[in-house]
Amino acid sequence: MVTAGRAAPGAGLDAILRPRSIAVIGASQDATKIGGRPVQLLQRFGFPGAIWPVNPRAAEVQGLPAFASAAALPDAPDLAIIAVAAEHAAAALEDCAARGTRAAVVFSSGFAELGAEGEAAQAALGAIATRTGMRILGPNCLGAVSVAERSIATFSIVLEGALPPAGPLGIASQSGNLGSYTMLLARERGIGVSRFLTTGNECDVDIADAIAWLAQDDATKVVLAVLETCRDAPRLVRALELAREAGKPVVVLKIGATAAGQAAAASHTGALAGSDAVFDAVFARTGAVRVRSVEALLDLGHAAAVCGEALPRGRRTMLLTASGGFGVLLADAATAVGLELPAPEPATQRRILSVVPFASARNPVDATAQMGARPEVLVEILAAILDDPNCDALLLQLAASLYVPRLRGVFLPALKAMREKHTEKLLMLSVHGPADAVAELTALGMPVVDGVDASTATLAGLCALAEARRAPLPAAVALPPAAPLDPAALRTEAAAKQALAAAGVPVLPERVVRNAEEAAAAAAALGFPVVLKVVSPDLPHKTEVGGVMLDLGDAGAVTAAHAAMLARVRAAAPQARLDGVLVAPMLRGGVELILGTKRDPVFGPVVLVGLGGIFAEIMQDVAIRPAPVDEAEALAMLRSLRAFPVLDGARGRPRADLAAAARAVAAVSRFAAQQAAAVAEVDINPLLVRAEGEGAVALDALIIPREDRP
Amino acid sequence: MVTAGRAAPGAGLDAILRPRSIAVIGASQDATKIGGRPVQLLQRFGFPGAIWPVNPRAAEVQGLPAFASAAALPDAPDLAIIAVAAEHAAAALEDCAARGTRAAVVFSSGFAELGAEGEAAQAALGAIATRTGMRILGPNCLGAVSVAERSIATFSIVLEGALPPAGPLGIASQSGNLGSYTMLLARERGIGVSRFLTTGNECDVDIADAIAWLAQDDATKVVLAVLETCRDAPRLVRALELAREAGKPVVVLKIGATAAGQAAAASHTGALAGSDAVFDAVFARTGAVRVRSVEALLDLGHAAAVCGEALPRGRRTMLLTASGGFGVLLADAATAVGLELPAPEPATQRRILSVVPFASARNPVDATAQMGARPEVLVEILAAILDDPNCDALLLQLAASLYVPRLRGVFLPALKAMREKHTEKLLMLSVHGPADAVAELTALGMPVVDGVDASTATLAGLCALAEARRAPLPAAVALPPAAPLDPAALRTEAAAKQALAAAGVPVLPERVVRNAEEAAAAAAALGFPVVLKVVSPDLPHKTEVGGVMLDLGDAGAVTAAHAAMLARVRAAAPQARLDGVLVAPMLRGGVELILGTKRDPVFGPVVLVGLGGIFAEIMQDVAIRPAPVDEAEALAMLRSLRAFPVLDGARGRPRADLAAAARAVAAVSRFAAQQAAAVAEVDINPLLVRAEGEGAVALDALIIPREDRP
Repeated sequence: MVTAGRAAPGAGLDAILRPRSIAVIGASQDATKIGGRPVQLLQRFGFPGAIWPVNPRAAEVQGLPAFASAAALPDAPDLAIIAVAAEHAAAALEDCAARGTRAAVVFSSGFAELGAEGEAAQAALGAIATRTGMRILGPNCLGAVSVAERSIATFSIVLEGALPPAGPLGIASQSGNLGSYTMLLARERGIGVSRFLTTGNECDVDIADAIAWLAQDDATKVVLAVLETCRDAPRLVRALELAREAGKPVVVLKIGATAAGQAAAASHTGALAGSDAVFDAVFARTGAVRVRSVEALLDLGHAAAVCGEALPRGRRTMLLTASGGFGVLLADAATAVGLELPAPEPATQRRILSVVPFASARNPVDATAQMGARPEVLVEILAAILDDPNCDALLLQLAASLYVPRLRGVFLPALKAMREKHTEKLLMLSVHGPADAVAELTALGMPVVDGVDASTATLAGLCALAEARRAPLPAAVALPPAAPLDPAALRTEAAAKQALAAAGVPVLPERVVRNAEEAAAAAAALGFPVVLKVVSPDLPHKTEVGGVMLDLGDAGAVTAAHAAMLARVRAAAPQARLDGVLVAPMLRGGVELILGTKRDPVFGPVVLVGLGGIFAEIMQDVAIRPAPVDEAEALAMLRSLRAFPVLDGARGRPRADLAAAARAVAAVSRFAAQQAAAVAEVDINPLLVRAEGEGAVALDALIIPREDRP
Repeated sequence: MVTAGRAAPGAGLDAILRPRSIAVIGASQDATKIGGRPVQLLQRFGFPGAIWPVNPRAAEVQGLPAFASAAALPDAPDLAIIAVAAEHAAAALEDCAARGTRAAVVFSSGFAELGAEGEAAQAALGAIATRTGMRILGPNCLGAVSVAERSIATFSIVLEGALPPAGPLGIASQSGNLGSYTMLLARERGIGVSRFLTTGNECDVDIADAIAWLAQDDATKVVLAVLETCRDAPRLVRALELAREAGKPVVVLKIGATAAGQAAAASHTGALAGSDAVFDAVFARTGAVRVRSVEALLDLGHAAAVCGEALPRGRRTMLLTASGGFGVLLADAATAVGLELPAPEPATQRRILSVVPFASARNPVDATAQMGARPEVLVEILAAILDDPNCDALLLQLAASLYVPRLRGVFLPALKAMREKHTEKLLMLSVHGPADAVAELTALGMPVVDGVDASTATLAGLCALAEARRAPLPAAVALPPAAPLDPAALRTEAAAKQALAAAGVPVLPERVVRNAEEAAAAAAALGFPVVLKVVSPDLPHKTEVGGVMLDLGDAGAVTAAHAAMLARVRAAAPQARLDGVLVAPMLRGGVELILGTKRDPVFGPVVLVGLGGIFAEIMQDVAIRPAPVDEAEALAMLRSLRAFPVLDGARGRPRADLAAAARAVAAVSRFAAQQAAAVAEVDINPLLVRAEGEGAVALDALIIPREDRP
């Protein structure tokens, strides 16, 4: 599902990334100015197409003939770069559209990032795109680069140095600076880049367009995406799905992980911050793998490109070092990122010890300085480990050994031989330079990363990419049409439960009564013990006004409690309308979950589940996903809770009915998605999950209509 | 307290680090051999003292006259390097001791790292140190280097390149490779090193010696310590205290943080792994700050040296960037490491906006690309932030801007002016090169770190060092002599509680009875409701055999429960000796803690506390410290629990009696320390902590004598 009325993600971006002619509107003689730098860079790096500076006050710009206006150009340029002040940008775009240009990049700033006035000006640019069909990148963006094509539609100062080599990484970034810095690091490390595309304020082309276009670009093998926000969730999801369908790994640096970061992002982008955890869920569903820094983005993206199809088959990792201390650091780091460290088979250990008797043959394998003694020693140890059936990946740590020519002469041939022999296993290195040795290893198909933490994190990222590739594409959750609800009628517990029960959430048999006699009769019919709860549309939080009585064991207790409770409630909330008293069976045992939904500013209805009581409130141990989820994803949510062992029969507890709990989570999530127009929040507290086979039941429920949460 | 019979930490190491003459026993003509490399390096780097190769089969080694034996040397060398096979090491040491040498470095491997046989050989080396008073570094170590003195008693291949510059960082490492790699990174970054000292298998000189000597070394301003294990806890604690008394920051890379890492460390060092969390507690007490990687060790150590006395006064950090995206990343990273990000005062915000109207003047401050426009813009923004009363530290992020000459020309003078004006505040940079600009800034007293995560983590580390410096030195907990306990008499709950009550742990009044009538009478005297528990030295876990009955409200219930319980216990454990039944009042309400002690293989008795139930068991939310702790540290333990809000009155709960809980923790810890000879473990489960002012009480207690835990 993609927002109606907009182009499919990625459509029309060819002219931005593969233009045959580029006009620079606002071209400047001064190459340090934003209107001067692209003219300089296009010439310096040898753009083979036409470069048309547009400047009404110059006959020539940086050695090229200049044109007075877009209308005066010899032909319609494929791409127009708009490098004029904000107040002239709309007119410049209109001129270009009139000349027949189908794509533009707007460098100008002074739009939505300044607040309401700028937002209006920006909306005017978006309207030009909608009306003319011209795709507009920006405003307030750093533009786009295609390295192999020498198409340089940017004013990034990073290119004052040099271009990165042409290669497999496509960079799509909302932030110009973070995108630029990624390109800078790539260039410094000699890592190849296909495209660089920054979307800035996104009046038209958004990050989903950028990802989708790169997903279908032959030159791009891995997509690196930098996200600060998301202005159209369905388009983003669709773009990530397109990348997955194309078999292109997507590595995402999504910034704004903390409250402070989200506040900064909202202030910077002018967009509402969505829950960071919901972004995680979207990435997990679509197989994108998230990193936390520009350095990690490049490490993982580059490693994925080096691996190509040969991603690790599993997380069983063998660590090999020539140093016990580094082995310990590696083991710590590998464990922290979720790699598995199985012990080598006894036969493998014997093979290692037969070559280096003083080695530590367990995992991490410490082959001691003997590893660098003779090439055949290393070949034999590598072969022993790669032959081990418990090994999916071998991470060899060499610190700075490759700087020593004697060791380099031993390691490189041995690694080459093993890489060619064991194509089915990942062979990766943790190495601190030198650059030419790293390049040689990389060319052989071995990812090389500098640093213990960075190399183990990259390996774990490769495993996550491999798992995403292996996982079946998640089927869309079917949402049969549901009758619209009357929001006003949802405000009592009884009505909320009725609506949820109709949606498939188990509730208890219960009755609403008008007096103590009816209460006692209802209790007898339902079976003792029972609970009583006041029914009132004005009292969503019944406990706070004394409106709940628990564990009433006989008719006398029910009658007395009925009177006492109503007296308390009337004293506490004399204005509240009372619609009677709810009588329900009292259940014991089981595990209490809180289960609810709310509206995320970016992703709409989301479902949350956590253990009840202080776990959710104080430990913040809650799973959250966009609604709807199917039962498999609901079960994955439960499993992701730190407190999951409580449900899973830890320490002699009975195992809870996980299947029933998952069904309830899925049912609530479907309800929230179906009734998104009427329902702002659902709050089931608790959902009692009984022992395996005994089901789960919503003991209390509250629905907050959207009209109450403007 | 330092282990009896050993030299004070650091004593006698001068000869290792400031020798005037060095003999190399096993000197080799081949400079790639471990007996050849020091001869080469000492000459190459210009050691000004005497270099005496000892080799019975050569008249000359690498151009120097060689000697047949230690006895043949012209004088007693200050330092002997032992580079012979393991089986000849002891004889070589004896020869050197006989010649009058007071210190030796043993490179030879093949000792405790090989298991029992090697351990015996190593013990023989240790015995030579003890008998002769000669200090021995190693065996199986990479030796020692003093940079300014050109004293190179190592065979590290890192020095095949060059020495690091002489400077303030003293490196003390158990692992030769990790120590070497630290030195390599320092050299690459141009960071000055005073000493390099690797302790290897520690037959005599240990990591505590190394830290203590560096703490008292004039050339060393900051100690970088790499720990894999600890073989003598009191010496380590004393060494860290010495560093603190000397005002020298200690940054520790303690490896083996995870179970996998600890297993690797134990296998590598042959030493038992202590609880990683106890190391944390020891570092916290002594003011050492822990890092997780070699890179972070160098980042923080160098930054601390650059700051000198001018550490940040608090954690209130202002972030300044020229990029919204980097601002978000910085805010995320700063929050994650515990920095505070206060909003600037309104007046500060107005000052910033008066200079750059489109800036984001909140924290992070995004001064946009205008920041690099003119020097006076940056000066004014820096001044506004540094004048703000809410600012302890200003972190300026420039990515790679200093590579652009125009920007460098703006930034450097502005920073210099501000550094000189605001000496009371930390001014730090997150910058990606170039090296000469970094060196210039560093020389002005501004720490510079590459990378968002690394710079924020380093800043947080500086704050931790500053907090440690400000904190009062913890007083030793007084442990009055206590009468030794009879371990055999501790095995029942009643005896355990009696012993703990005598140590100051509150318990309930309770009685042990022999029959149902006595039980009913005791219950009446104590007051209903009561609990009954079986008393048996054979049944430490009473619940498992049905040996506990709760909430007995009258005499009839007590009589019935007494019979039923004993029948259940006899059926479940027919062999168990039953010594009666314990009757105690039944308390309700409050928060249940688990409180206990156990023996750590490295640190001896340690005290643990956590919330009862699944918090401690499943969430592993437990605080652990070496025993004894005082009440302030006990309170800090409680506050460190993730579940602390449960004790602190979260969500309308009554606040628990924290002072009483802390008193109980401290009392139990003193008990464990006093009775360390007799007691292996104490297990109080639960300690019921009642509402503020109502105290805490041990409801159940178990003491496991050391004779039960061989």
